[in-house]
Amino acid sequence: MPNYLLRLAFVGTNFSGWQIQPNVRTVQGELTKALKIIFKEDVKVIGCCRTDAGVHALDYIANFKATREIEAEKILKALNGMLPKDIGVYEVKIVPEDFNARYSVKKKTYLYKIWNSEVRNPFLYHFSWQVKRKLNKELLIKGLKKLEGTHDFEGFAKLEEEKNTVINLEKVEISFKEPLIEIRLTASHFLRYMVRRIVGTCVKIAIGFFSEEILEDILSKKVKAPYTAPACGLHLEKVEV
Amino acid sequence: MPNYLLRLAFVGTNFSGWQIQPNVRTVQGELTKALKIIFKEDVKVIGCCRTDAGVHALDYIANFKATREIEAEKILKALNGMLPKDIGVYEVKIVPEDFNARYSVKKKTYLYKIWNSEVRNPFLYHFSWQVKRKLNKELLIKGLKKLEGTHDFEGFAKLEEEKNTVINLEKVEISFKEPLIEIRLTASHFLRYMVRRIVGTCVKIAIGFFSEEILEDILSKKVKAPYTAPACGLHLEKVEV
Repeated sequence: MPNYLLRLAFVGTNFSGWQIQPNVRTVQGELTKALKIIFKEDVKVIGCCRTDAGVHALDYIANFKATREIEAEKILKALNGMLPKDIGVYEVKIVPEDFNARYSVKKKTYLYKIWNSEVRNPFLYHFSWQVKRKLNKELLIKGLKKLEGTHDFEGFAKLEEEKNTVINLEKVEISFKEPLIEIRLTASHFLRYMVRRIVGTCVKIAIGFFSEEILEDILSKKVKAPYTAPACGLHLEKVEV
Repeated sequence: MPNYLLRLAFVGTNFSGWQIQPNVRTVQGELTKALKIIFKEDVKVIGCCRTDAGVHALDYIANFKATREIEAEKILKALNGMLPKDIGVYEVKIVPEDFNARYSVKKKTYLYKIWNSEVRNPFLYHFSWQVKRKLNKELLIKGLKKLEGTHDFEGFAKLEEEKNTVINLEKVEISFKEPLIEIRLTASHFLRYMVRRIVGTCVKIAIGFFSEEILEDILSKKVKAPYTAPACGLHLEKVEV
């Protein structure tokens, strides 16, 4: 059975996340419907990770196996013709049979956008977190950089199953194009809510809501991260296989 | 009576343009409603220009006069609190009584975005024109640059009233961040559909639909511009007063 890889992007605003669920609109659900029409059989689409409702993906990887072999170029055109406009598939190719989008991912980069202004940017309303109070840049950088490297991130996560919570947060980048702030986090895997709670907590430190010491307390699991940044600012930016 | 200037931005997707009309959602209509609540009187909001349905504004200027004088900072906060999320007001200030947003504009720059790829970018779906066929860059640049300078643009316009159709198109800029193409046109004023018909016609030349000679024929008024690029790619980017 041919194994197909898909690379796609989606605007998360009107999706209840990636994972198929009854009675709601999901990215996996839309892909499953379209592929069933193309292949005339039920196919199981495997995604590289779940995403929360409202989270965007500039790059997302999925794979599926089907009985029939159809030319990749034809699948690409058919999918883009059938899928709703908030999903765009930009690559389809046949990969080795053991390729699995969930387990073959080596690294992921998340981008979180903050609009740090009292005044709304209507173009970024669904694509950033508007923080009205002026952030202290040094505190923001210091907090985020403290989390770089290998730590037990359990305190930043919502755990639904046994998981290895010790993660090497390989890279933390912060760029200021004021009033826009972009935070990029790279690791081999992430825990649920981890990026949003890291950003949420560090932003609240940078506006003086919490003291810096809270990060130490979360890492040592004395407390749970107290704030989850909104989903709309989060973008899965790059997936490396 | 104090004369207030507003600088704002709006996402045009869900508006039937700037100008107030019965039974449809317009930017002028939303501002008029909000200002009536703030000033407790009917105010007449004057905009720097009309915009077509679906056209965006990164920068837009309006003004209005009211009986009461309210602090600019308070108006700014109240407006952003009340207006829908696809409008953002980023400046309010009191200006001389003879300032009129329509007649005080010295220069405007329009930005038109083209996504030149077979594959859809879901993030630019409402903010660009997807042209699937590969554009010939040289033909695009040559066509657009031919229109720079002073010409009679009547052939590119939809005229609803007597208007001076001789315009100095001061600056034409084209930048390629492939597959994204950005076209910027600057002039003291524009005619209705002018930017969209210039872009539409030059793009159709660049994909081989029309020959280059058509531009000469439109300028000499022998024919009308044959193609209007979609509204969603158009952004009013800068207004100078």
